[in-house]
Amino acid sequence: MRLRNVKNAKEILESSKYFVKNPEEFKGSWKSVFNNDNPIMIEIGMGKGMFLKNMAKNHPEWNFIGIEKYESVLVRGVENLEEEQLENVRVMCIDAKEIENYLSSEVDSLYLNFSDPWPKKRHHKRRLTHESFLKEYDKVFKSNAHIILKTDNDSLFEFSLMSLCNYGYKFEKIVLDLWNSKEENIRTEYEEKFGNMGFKIKYLEAYKKLEVERNLKR
Amino acid sequence: MRLRNVKNAKEILESSKYFVKNPEEFKGSWKSVFNNDNPIMIEIGMGKGMFLKNMAKNHPEWNFIGIEKYESVLVRGVENLEEEQLENVRVMCIDAKEIENYLSSEVDSLYLNFSDPWPKKRHHKRRLTHESFLKEYDKVFKSNAHIILKTDNDSLFEFSLMSLCNYGYKFEKIVLDLWNSKEENIRTEYEEKFGNMGFKIKYLEAYKKLEVERNLKR
Repeated sequence: MRLRNVKNAKEILESSKYFVKNPEEFKGSWKSVFNNDNPIMIEIGMGKGMFLKNMAKNHPEWNFIGIEKYESVLVRGVENLEEEQLENVRVMCIDAKEIENYLSSEVDSLYLNFSDPWPKKRHHKRRLTHESFLKEYDKVFKSNAHIILKTDNDSLFEFSLMSLCNYGYKFEKIVLDLWNSKEENIRTEYEEKFGNMGFKIKYLEAYKKLEVERNLKR
Repeated sequence: MRLRNVKNAKEILESSKYFVKNPEEFKGSWKSVFNNDNPIMIEIGMGKGMFLKNMAKNHPEWNFIGIEKYESVLVRGVENLEEEQLENVRVMCIDAKEIENYLSSEVDSLYLNFSDPWPKKRHHKRRLTHESFLKEYDKVFKSNAHIILKTDNDSLFEFSLMSLCNYGYKFEKIVLDLWNSKEENIRTEYEEKFGNMGFKIKYLEAYKKLEVERNLKR
């Protein structure tokens, strides 16, 4: 996403009820933030937050944590969320690389929507489905790993399919043309724009049993 | 492929040096047919044989066995092969379901080119990447299972990615637009026609270690 410097970003964030200022304090105990035992879904790279807002509205039975690396982007996300009164959403400004410092064995599903495709080969290790990230995600999932990904980028989709499968994930769904399928779909801002320009939206859902792996490691 | 009844199909096949009349006799000993130890590649559903012919010409260091269910189609394939003098190709007229009666622990790679997509859900078990077929293929591969698939059909490609991964295959390559990639590619008749009409050709290469599995079963 194109970044513009936003004045007073920090102040705007800190004044929002959705923003969690010291997220490291809730590692392993996010359910206390939401004050219930509902499943916890996270979105890495929440951008302007349209997906997060609409998912939270449609699914009051789930909790959502939006993750965004850049304060200036997260400000737009928070402004979007402020249009609604939602009890089941929080956001934090952290780098996905360091997710294990903020979450521990408590996440049910992870959404990756239109992540940066990092087209150059030498940058592929920065892709959010690179093995090094998948290893981090293992630490934050509750019992099973469950990743839901959307992208319009062929190369990122090919890479993600390979990386997930070769890391031990199995696939629940693969859809090469989401908009022309019968799948339920909440669109992101980016998706709305590029889907309407004719780019095909690709979708996958992958899962991996963690309990077995964790028991083996004991 | 559209089927036309071909007069004297059986006679035409039996008069060709490429056609193996009693393939069950060579189960486990196909290298004696080729009289060498070169890798053995099979194509299930060879159709008119353009892929098989050109692969055999380009790769004299490999042996090829073309498999086709319908005599009337195989006749066209054999006529195509007759244009060349190839020592490294044979064809047989069998149903892929019964492949274990004709081959045993001797195949290096399996090509599936533009297989019937069987669009109706109740027919998905007929798809050549359905689990029931993958189980049969396990019996014919030498040490590692290795499947190379091309299709223009989204639904068959999605299904094949899921079926292969969930059965334990890993991916070496996934390409969503083969013609616009740098991959080497020998086209089939079908591919030539539908690729030129603008359909995107999807490609995958998947492998699975069989030695481990076989040792575990002992």
